[in-house]
Amino acid sequence: MKRYDYSTLTNPQVNKLCRRPAIDFEAVFGIVKPIIEDVRHKGDDAVLDYTEQFDDVRPASLTSHVRATSEISIQDKVRDAFEMAYANIFKFHQAQYPKDLTVETMPGVLCSRVSRPIQKVGLYVPGGTAILPSTLLMLGVPAQIAGCEEIVIATPPRVDGTIAPEIEYIASRIGASLIVKAGGAQAIAALAYGTNSVPKVDKILGPGNQFVTTAKMLLQNSDAMVSMDMPAGPSELLVIADTTANPSFVAADLLSQAEHGTDSQVVLVGIGDIDFEAIEQQIQKQSSKLPRADKAIIALENSFFLHVSSPEEAMAFSNKYAPEHLIINCEDAKQLSTKVKNAGSVFIGPWSAESAGDYASGTNHTLPTYGYARMYSGVSLDTYFKHITMQELSQEGLRSIASTVTTMAEAESLDAHKNAITIRL
Amino acid sequence: MKRYDYSTLTNPQVNKLCRRPAIDFEAVFGIVKPIIEDVRHKGDDAVLDYTEQFDDVRPASLTSHVRATSEISIQDKVRDAFEMAYANIFKFHQAQYPKDLTVETMPGVLCSRVSRPIQKVGLYVPGGTAILPSTLLMLGVPAQIAGCEEIVIATPPRVDGTIAPEIEYIASRIGASLIVKAGGAQAIAALAYGTNSVPKVDKILGPGNQFVTTAKMLLQNSDAMVSMDMPAGPSELLVIADTTANPSFVAADLLSQAEHGTDSQVVLVGIGDIDFEAIEQQIQKQSSKLPRADKAIIALENSFFLHVSSPEEAMAFSNKYAPEHLIINCEDAKQLSTKVKNAGSVFIGPWSAESAGDYASGTNHTLPTYGYARMYSGVSLDTYFKHITMQELSQEGLRSIASTVTTMAEAESLDAHKNAITIRL
Repeated sequence: MKRYDYSTLTNPQVNKLCRRPAIDFEAVFGIVKPIIEDVRHKGDDAVLDYTEQFDDVRPASLTSHVRATSEISIQDKVRDAFEMAYANIFKFHQAQYPKDLTVETMPGVLCSRVSRPIQKVGLYVPGGTAILPSTLLMLGVPAQIAGCEEIVIATPPRVDGTIAPEIEYIASRIGASLIVKAGGAQAIAALAYGTNSVPKVDKILGPGNQFVTTAKMLLQNSDAMVSMDMPAGPSELLVIADTTANPSFVAADLLSQAEHGTDSQVVLVGIGDIDFEAIEQQIQKQSSKLPRADKAIIALENSFFLHVSSPEEAMAFSNKYAPEHLIINCEDAKQLSTKVKNAGSVFIGPWSAESAGDYASGTNHTLPTYGYARMYSGVSLDTYFKHITMQELSQEGLRSIASTVTTMAEAESLDAHKNAITIRL
Repeated sequence: MKRYDYSTLTNPQVNKLCRRPAIDFEAVFGIVKPIIEDVRHKGDDAVLDYTEQFDDVRPASLTSHVRATSEISIQDKVRDAFEMAYANIFKFHQAQYPKDLTVETMPGVLCSRVSRPIQKVGLYVPGGTAILPSTLLMLGVPAQIAGCEEIVIATPPRVDGTIAPEIEYIASRIGASLIVKAGGAQAIAALAYGTNSVPKVDKILGPGNQFVTTAKMLLQNSDAMVSMDMPAGPSELLVIADTTANPSFVAADLLSQAEHGTDSQVVLVGIGDIDFEAIEQQIQKQSSKLPRADKAIIALENSFFLHVSSPEEAMAFSNKYAPEHLIINCEDAKQLSTKVKNAGSVFIGPWSAESAGDYASGTNHTLPTYGYARMYSGVSLDTYFKHITMQELSQEGLRSIASTVTTMAEAESLDAHKNAITIRL
């Protein structure tokens, strides 16, 4: 890993360290656009054709209904793990349930704000080398709590055209009605426009590769009338550590992020007399036992250690970088966490491994990457709600507000706006 | 206005009535893209050049600092109106202030959710034929309450290169630091990338014409690293009325929406024996006195009356249409409002004119149009916050969650994730 000393860096150099590698979406527009058009016009057939082309499988049916958990066979140990994770995620997201708000801004002017679930949501679960039931838990539990009327899942089928029982189990647990056995841009397009067998949804959520991300970007700004969770880039971790941090814990955390892929972003900000060598030795030692070490090592080569002189300097850099995951493993970690301005999710103290939050602490693991933590929040219960405002004026209320409204309407040359008040009085 | 009877319509016909006129953004991509590139590379000069080209004015300086309200001269009556509107908007948005949340999901597993303001926001206020101080109030008051560190305004200058004192007054009131004297795609690009004199912001908010909207769409999905409030289309109103509604009120409300522009969307859903003729006569009578009647009349020609037999049917259609503004002017309006699923803002009862909410009731008038009320909320205090999750596990907490995390990490073939737990225990 490269090393930098904060005190010797110029502002442009700090900005450069905060920059993520450019993703060239324009390059895949040309691939994704025709897929979207095909799915839009040919529906199910196009989705099946692309699935055959890209995933080497053509399921007998594009969709499958979700069976009861009692009919789905998974290992007891796995089911127990899923159930504990489900319970924690449910508890944390249930506590976010929005309360309706009513404020009488002036006598007779009652303003309120109510929350209504988005009616139909599409949850995308990537396939590839491994199954990702945790992604479905993170997307599905809040959708279920919010009370979305229809939860549709899209995920690439396995080579035999079926869906992994672990995914189906969670699908059943979160109350999903349908699984679309497709991945990639074709799955996103099917959810956005609807086909004969896939219902058109209002919002699409979930991570994916560059084709999925590009399809989401294009469809978000199209006549498909669909919204998305957030822009997505490779996963990231920034660790703030000092001499009190166990080097083996720090190394394990950096590796857990790095194993996601060669493009994972890993940053270690070390305070004061921290022993970078001890951490590097631990990385070497631990990575030798990891099956995905090849990926992790490439990711770490693109990453860096930054030496800072104080916790405040560490946090200043972290806030500038705006990491998806932030581990604070130093003295007074709790106190330092109050200074966080930009981050997706924060892990405080020596025992808060990122993987605890990835799976089961209760927080959501669908988080803003790529520096978008400066302006986006991770998925939460709110992600599945619209907040609608209402106002009810009494005749008295309208009278007391009338001259304000008519004066402002005049200032903006909107006479019919004024007329709607004066005609009532 | 065209008339339809709900009972005679097929489902596809109802869907067609819910569809908004297509907006061809692709057509302006070709105009907007080079503007964005120019501003990105040439900065201030490009912004000034485009302002000269499109707005026929080249201000001596691209930006101006915001003076104290005491130095800004506006009419007393206008100032009083602004102050009352400010107070109501402040009160309603202040009540939305997010509370931090802490949940112990399991013993020793503390999860929390905290809110942090987005640091730098850019508020766009369109120019054109009239000034729009109300837009700045609606965007700026919640930014001020949230505590955004920097509030930058962009708005086209007047022909003499200055900013209207009404806009400057509100800018001062909401604590903005700078006004960029530019509009259009060039202003949005300057806020997104930053220039020598314009700070780069994290989020851009505010309505605009097709060039502004297209620039926002393109920049949201670019390496500019900026987010936007929501997609924007022409303004809309759906009125639900029955025989208890005063036809002159209904007509005035329809006209107040229609005067926004020829592309305004206006829908009247009439229940039972409602007298459509009386409302049409009132429209003709009132519009004859309106300076913007020409615009309103074209808008109304594209709009329609829909006859339904019951309040429930009216609400079913409204929820399908998902209007930006919904006026419920019928018996038991309050009760019917509990059935709203999709709308931006709702106006309940005979005295709740839309223009009251446009200016001063306290609710926000920056609302989802074009059917996006199905999945987006209007601007609220939340628009200016990120919600960051945190977790702090004790050693005991990690122990109790460990087998869940390691089992799920195994199921997803992520060994380093498992290792980050086992190495700690």
